[in-house]
Amino acid sequence: MDRDQLFPLLDQFNIETPTWAYADTGTRFGKYLQPAAASTIDEKLADAGTVHRYTGCCPTVAVHVQWDFSVGVDATATASVAAKHGIRIGSINPNFFQDQVYKFGSVCNPDESVHVHAHRHMMSCIAIAKAVKSKTLSLWFPDGTNYPGQDDIVERKHRMHGALRQWHEAMPPEMKMLIEYKPFEPAFYHTDIADWGMAYIFAKDAGPNARVLVDTGHHLQGQNIEQIVALLIDEEMLGGFHFNDRKYADDDLTMGSIDPYAVFRIFHEIRNAAELHDRDVSDIAYMIDQSHNLKPKIEATIQTVATAQELYAKACLVDRKKLRDAQMATNVIDAEQCLKDAFFTDVRPMLQEWRKKKNLEPDPLAAYRASGYEAKVSAERESSRTTRGSNPSGSYA
Amino acid sequence: MDRDQLFPLLDQFNIETPTWAYADTGTRFGKYLQPAAASTIDEKLADAGTVHRYTGCCPTVAVHVQWDFSVGVDATATASVAAKHGIRIGSINPNFFQDQVYKFGSVCNPDESVHVHAHRHMMSCIAIAKAVKSKTLSLWFPDGTNYPGQDDIVERKHRMHGALRQWHEAMPPEMKMLIEYKPFEPAFYHTDIADWGMAYIFAKDAGPNARVLVDTGHHLQGQNIEQIVALLIDEEMLGGFHFNDRKYADDDLTMGSIDPYAVFRIFHEIRNAAELHDRDVSDIAYMIDQSHNLKPKIEATIQTVATAQELYAKACLVDRKKLRDAQMATNVIDAEQCLKDAFFTDVRPMLQEWRKKKNLEPDPLAAYRASGYEAKVSAERESSRTTRGSNPSGSYA
Amino acid sequence: MDRDQLFPLLDQFNIETPTWAYADTGTRFGKYLQPAAASTIDEKLADAGTVHRYTGCCPTVAVHVQWDFSVGVDATATASVAAKHGIRIGSINPNFFQDQVYKFGSVCNPDESVHVHAHRHMMSCIAIAKAVKSKTLSLWFPDGTNYPGQDDIVERKHRMHGALRQWHEAMPPEMKMLIEYKPFEPAFYHTDIADWGMAYIFAKDAGPNARVLVDTGHHLQGQNIEQIVALLIDEEMLGGFHFNDRKYADDDLTMGSIDPYAVFRIFHEIRNAAELHDRDVSDIAYMIDQSHNLKPKIEATIQTVATAQELYAKACLVDRKKLRDAQMATNVIDAEQCLKDAFFTDVRPMLQEWRKKKNLEPDPLAAYRASGYEAKVSAERESSRTTRGSNPSGSYA
Amino acid sequence: MDRDQLFPLLDQFNIETPTWAYADTGTRFGKYLQPAAASTIDEKLADAGTVHRYTGCCPTVAVHVQWDFSVGVDATATASVAAKHGIRIGSINPNFFQDQVYKFGSVCNPDESVHVHAHRHMMSCIAIAKAVKSKTLSLWFPDGTNYPGQDDIVERKHRMHGALRQWHEAMPPEMKMLIEYKPFEPAFYHTDIADWGMAYIFAKDAGPNARVLVDTGHHLQGQNIEQIVALLIDEEMLGGFHFNDRKYADDDLTMGSIDPYAVFRIFHEIRNAAELHDRDVSDIAYMIDQSHNLKPKIEATIQTVATAQELYAKACLVDRKKLRDAQMATNVIDAEQCLKDAFFTDVRPMLQEWRKKKNLEPDPLAAYRASGYEAKVSAERESSRTTRGSNPSGSYA
Repeated sequence: MDRDQLFPLLDQFNIETPTWAYADTGTRFGKYLQPAAASTIDEKLADAGTVHRYTGCCPTVAVHVQWDFSVGVDATATASVAAKHGIRIGSINPNFFQDQVYKFGSVCNPDESVHVHAHRHMMSCIAIAKAVKSKTLSLWFPDGTNYPGQDDIVERKHRMHGALRQWHEAMPPEMKMLIEYKPFEPAFYHTDIADWGMAYIFAKDAGPNARVLVDTGHHLQGQNIEQIVALLIDEEMLGGFHFNDRKYADDDLTMGSIDPYAVFRIFHEIRNAAELHDRDVSDIAYMIDQSHNLKPKIEATIQTVATAQELYAKACLVDRKKLRDAQMATNVIDAEQCLKDAFFTDVRPMLQEWRKKKNLEPDPLAAYRASGYEAKVSAERESSRTTRGSNPSGSYA
Repeated sequence: MDRDQLFPLLDQFNIETPTWAYADTGTRFGKYLQPAAASTIDEKLADAGTVHRYTGCCPTVAVHVQWDFSVGVDATATASVAAKHGIRIGSINPNFFQDQVYKFGSVCNPDESVHVHAHRHMMSCIAIAKAVKSKTLSLWFPDGTNYPGQDDIVERKHRMHGALRQWHEAMPPEMKMLIEYKPFEPAFYHTDIADWGMAYIFAKDAGPNARVLVDTGHHLQGQNIEQIVALLIDEEMLGGFHFNDRKYADDDLTMGSIDPYAVFRIFHEIRNAAELHDRDVSDIAYMIDQSHNLKPKIEATIQTVATAQELYAKACLVDRKKLRDAQMATNVIDAEQCLKDAFFTDVRPMLQEWRKKKNLEPDPLAAYRASGYEAKVSAERESSRTTRGSNPSGSYA
Repeated sequence: MDRDQLFPLLDQFNIETPTWAYADTGTRFGKYLQPAAASTIDEKLADAGTVHRYTGCCPTVAVHVQWDFSVGVDATATASVAAKHGIRIGSINPNFFQDQVYKFGSVCNPDESVHVHAHRHMMSCIAIAKAVKSKTLSLWFPDGTNYPGQDDIVERKHRMHGALRQWHEAMPPEMKMLIEYKPFEPAFYHTDIADWGMAYIFAKDAGPNARVLVDTGHHLQGQNIEQIVALLIDEEMLGGFHFNDRKYADDDLTMGSIDPYAVFRIFHEIRNAAELHDRDVSDIAYMIDQSHNLKPKIEATIQTVATAQELYAKACLVDRKKLRDAQMATNVIDAEQCLKDAFFTDVRPMLQEWRKKKNLEPDPLAAYRASGYEAKVSAERESSRTTRGSNPSGSYA
Repeated sequence: MDRDQLFPLLDQFNIETPTWAYADTGTRFGKYLQPAAASTIDEKLADAGTVHRYTGCCPTVAVHVQWDFSVGVDATATASVAAKHGIRIGSINPNFFQDQVYKFGSVCNPDESVHVHAHRHMMSCIAIAKAVKSKTLSLWFPDGTNYPGQDDIVERKHRMHGALRQWHEAMPPEMKMLIEYKPFEPAFYHTDIADWGMAYIFAKDAGPNARVLVDTGHHLQGQNIEQIVALLIDEEMLGGFHFNDRKYADDDLTMGSIDPYAVFRIFHEIRNAAELHDRDVSDIAYMIDQSHNLKPKIEATIQTVATAQELYAKACLVDRKKLRDAQMATNVIDAEQCLKDAFFTDVRPMLQEWRKKKNLEPDPLAAYRASGYEAKVSAERESSRTTRGSNPSGSYA
């Protein structure tokens, strides 16, 4: 594949960054604060706009309703702030864990009054989505139990079905509902949507606009994620991704930092579906979901985006004709080598060229660093926090 | 729950033993041979009949077509041998790994001639099933790949869909097709039916008589198996179980030997579905699938059956009214304690009583040992093997 | 084993509860607050004393220096408060993660000034230990890195060696240093003391009073914990335990809630070492380290202590003579059955009898609940928190 | 790093191939036979010599005594065959699982007569080693148990200590004893040398020439292998490697086929130890231990060797000065990027150049394929097997 074929694919490859990537995050043992961390939605949108300015492929930002919107504040005003920073509001993420009523779950809680609370929040999310013209609801539920017997697993399943059906009905027809799964944390014995199979069943049941959302960190050790991706595309049920990496649990490390070949194989299955199986992969939502606990947040995001582009470009380079021939001939070594050859091709020069063509700096991280942005906002935000007298967290942990 | 309620439940609790439990098995490092191991189908059926004689709850035996039936031998003759030993042929298990053509898979193989080979074998299995009046086809596919790129994951999925649909069509209407999943081994990079979600999709697509088969050893570490069981019952898609235990991989150890509380929780979900959610659980197939590499095979099987009955009885004892009340009150400790109280009740005296009522020896293992069966068949089988001049394996490894 | 032999073993079985078990804890997604949660050291000691009053086997309490002691407050005063509640201060736990300087580690941090900070804290801990007459320093380090290359693994090892040697030297001769290991969290790529082998090497190097501390939740899936315990006793390097349970990661659930047979096997190895291998197991420190995020904290602690006693009693009941004979005869089934028979013996009646003999209520949880303690302290503590105007966390997350 | 610095490092990088890589291997479900598979030691040595001829860096071959040597055959004759093929005998691997007496273990077996059997085999191994001038004994024990209680873990530990001490004493002074660990398989409940920490303790106890052998596939999921490597080098206890790759268990796939970045990080730690910590890494034994079940065996070996060279070369390219500076400045992104930059450098052109300089074909796999070797030996070996009338397996499974 030459540049004439690669560059249009890169042109179409956009990846959404989340507001919480710019805020302070941590572990249950605490947060290490960064002076440049964004606290307010305005700061977060400024940061997201900055990332887009240097990368050229992050035109939208995912928002967390609980943290990023306030009662009584017009959501369209937030959309205008985003526009001012050169970006748009992307996926809308409700929050079903922050309020104390969610102790035993949100929509799966045995207490029906909690369902009402969750429902009201969800209706706000849909209203905000409409206001900011977002077409994506991205749903993750922390629901589950910590101990065997704690609640009736089947009852909880029925409660979840009920909520999703109701919300799907409340969505405008052009909206997509993405349903995320996770095998553990914050619930430890069972989570109500534990794996892709459960998310699939819930999505099928909810309605025609529901899809499965794959968070790469939400898998048990040893699971083959690219197979799940290939299967969901084949079933026309893949909604999108939350990208991150991990060594053991849901570590929310930067994408490709631990196992870049695994990410490459995911992109390979997507390109395979498009090129060999005639699947429309154009509406798969690529989103980052990371916690930048140690790395400077904007730098980490730019590094992630560059990594995503590189690994995607490598996947585009796979010689699919040769691969198919080797597969049909059961030539295992040659087939595997098609992937290896693409993966070990150094695509960085091509990406630099692509950036230049798009009037972007060839090395976005270096250019960002040279801009002095971080030092500037550190000073401003330190001062704002002092003025406000507290540190509104705007993120988990 | 008192004995009047428990005993009818135990009366209905049957568990199928497999012919390969009585044959020599091992690991890829080799087999340690036991003199009493069964080599022929007659020997295996004699052993299965012996287990039923002492336990009273193993009236059927699972057969492996490749190992237990021969071309030109009338399958009904085998059914007669079973009848002679007081048992019936239960589930029919085809074999898609033994023939050299299966190197790159059976129905998922890129080579279509292998599909023909597999199809012919499957048609024999259905014919045998009809002949022996078995209503259960138990399908496990070793299909998968060892290396990224080795084959097209999506093409393979389509090949599997095609085979299953075709075979479902070929089944008589009263027959059930159970589809087993496994995350690894003998294929190491990807297996074509890797988890319950994939088995569910294949079963849904195959036709109305297809169900999912849960092998307890075929899960990644940390997966909540009882949740999968509860969900499949709720979706009316649970076909049955292959029971065994393991510490890390698919170790095929005896049921309940590593984590008995986990098995108890599976039975708890089944009883819960029956008693609280009005589900018909009467046709769930309980089957053992173990490799008795070190333990004497019949002793191991009797021990397993007793363990299964004990853990099932404990699950029957759960005070479901109290449990439900505690759950609705979000009293986590009391809800959990309902399970713990049942699990730590010593049910062995009740089982002895149940056995006496059924005219069985109260301690089946001791009674079997006292019978001298093992010494007798060891001598006979050693001699037969010498006469035959070789050791027809009749099992994997 | 009859009661005359069991009861003295139970008399010697004490288990230490930690102050943080009584405080609000959570996950990185937040804390669900409980009105009865203890915030101050006085409240925590009152709760620990209450647990001891109902269980009779929790005479000491583990303290977390950062959360439980304040600069300028006399530690002996705290010891007096403990005494007032009928308990003593047990192990002293420093904190190497709360201060912002620990972002890149404590003693393994590349910045030497952080070592000084950690050292000063450790010297306070030793001083407090001396003051309250505690003989146990329990060291857990959150040190590690999140990304490949982040720091030099070997340099960090040398820094850790240096700190531990220095601190061992600073300990009075009767003090023990327990070194804990953990494979992940809060560091995600590598932790500086990742497993028992690393803890062993650090302890051997630190000096003669250093031992390994086994936290049951700090193991990778599939690891055989009881083997590690048996080995460490054989090497005279086992210092003690942090007990808890988990399904996947370091979930800090209540002991025995997920896999009670695994806990039983740990106690079995300890009794085996004592009875068959002449090991002195009297100074193994049994400690609870759990996060009671959902369960009421005192109830959860009492439930845990009762579970620990039951599982320990079951392990005492193993017929070791019969076990040894079966092992030497390579009779796998009978040997295993020795463990199963003990595990499935219902020891609850024996424990009730033991409690009566010790003038304790036979059902400690019921008795505690009947006392009205929780309602009383909830009211008082809600009021205190309002008065103080804030919620001093006194725990992680 | 330029070619002048890289090429000498490549010159010193040799990797040993094992005879069993050239023989038919499989899983417990059976073996798929390859016509070109080597059955006899002569065939295996011919294949190993062929690999060395095309790669230039495989001058030694590991032998499995049970499979490769026969009673009464002069070992020096085998060494001469090796010499004829341009290679030497490398590490000597005893076999403690093939004989039926090993059912319950070899040196850890409760039956002392088995120890005698194992000891006699080990003495043969040492004699063969002396005869063929090998300086490496590579010890892997399949010892362990399948069920809780099956045997006394501590007794077994003492039996292992005894055997290793005795054998260390029997070794000539220039011989090294490498002790391998494995967490499971073929024993499933516990293995007597389960992890690096146990291998370390056994090696320390055995004597000054004992070291730990790291098989990359013998780790639990989530374990950080490169940290273990770094630590063992620092403790002067790393003996060498058995390289292979895996997705879940001990899959014995070709090195770098699943997670090449992980292999790179291992080599990085070795180069770091050499360049920054002044460690002598020259005597680390690099060995391949793979089962080529599907891939053609010689092709798979050549592919593996090329992969090893590439990943090693990438590790050599890490800019260690820049890395150290970034680490000391806690610049996580720049430090990580030093590794990524090296890993994503395309080293294939450099390796081609290095091969040309060494008078090797630049593309060893293509050159081997062009040679017609496989077709030639397939015909010869098929014919030999027919003549011999059986297929001497000469490998596990």
